[in-house]
Amino acid sequence: MNTKLNSNYIVGFVDGEGCFSITINNHNNKQEVRLLFEIELREDDKKILERIQETLECGNIYYLKYKRYQKWRPHYKYKVSNFSDIYTKVIPFFRKYPLQAKKKLSFAKFCKVANMIKKKQHLNAIGIEKIKKVRNLVSDSLDALDTHVQWGAV
Amino acid sequence: MNTKLNSNYIVGFVDGEGCFSITINNHNNKQEVRLLFEIELREDDKKILERIQETLECGNIYYLKYKRYQKWRPHYKYKVSNFSDIYTKVIPFFRKYPLQAKKKLSFAKFCKVANMIKKKQHLNAIGIEKIKKVRNLVSDSLDALDTHVQWGAV
Repeated sequence: MNTKLNSNYIVGFVDGEGCFSITINNHNNKQEVRLLFEIELREDDKKILERIQETLECGNIYYLKYKRYQKWRPHYKYKVSNFSDIYTKVIPFFRKYPLQAKKKLSFAKFCKVANMIKKKQHLNAIGIEKIKKVRNLVSDSLDALDTHVQWGAV
Repeated sequence: MNTKLNSNYIVGFVDGEGCFSITINNHNNKQEVRLLFEIELREDDKKILERIQETLECGNIYYLKYKRYQKWRPHYKYKVSNFSDIYTKVIPFFRKYPLQAKKKLSFAKFCKVANMIKKKQHLNAIGIEKIKKVRNLVSDSLDALDTHVQWGAV
């Protein structure tokens, strides 16, 4: 049985439930920049994550049980953290089938930082400061971002 | 500018964010059954609700500000409560473009009750008890519901 999902369905689902994040963590006294594409759902919706994984042909699914929050139902998280998968699969997919809701701002910032990582700008302090500025852009900046931050440009 | 959305996009968005509910309220000592299709989002995502409204050609959008919860951002709610719109627009749409995640159970129950309302079964006590049983079905019952509760049958 073909369990792949319609591409526009995935866009709608991700506009509601998906998360494009730019993380900067300290690791051995160095700042590490990572991009993450994630969708977290209650455990009874695991199947839809598997179908998204199959359609995007990347990412992993993790089981999450919150010991601190006993009343919360367990969740499953679909996560793409491999940069090559993000750059060659996730980003091209959402450029072909564009997000329609406010999440397009997160995605525009995500693309901008992906380009900077591709050019290894995340490996020096100036680049990391630039990435932080992109990450902090708010929704009013979307128009500016659309103009100045084109995919393929830095 | 055409602001209508791709149908499969709407299905994906609703699978994440939409709500199909069967409400039974006491009104003048009588129980009233209503169907509601709703999507509630933060105020900065109002535009996507307007585009969904335009695509489904029904429903209204309401502004919600929670005085009790000052920390919560204001929201907008898209709501279809008119039975005729639900029966002739919302249900046919999601039958043509089926939900893929666990929300399909809510929708199957919603369709079942819509048929009962259409046949005026919600106007007597026996019908209302039957509607309550449908409403309480849990996800394990989805197969049974799919088999026994077909759209068009009661």
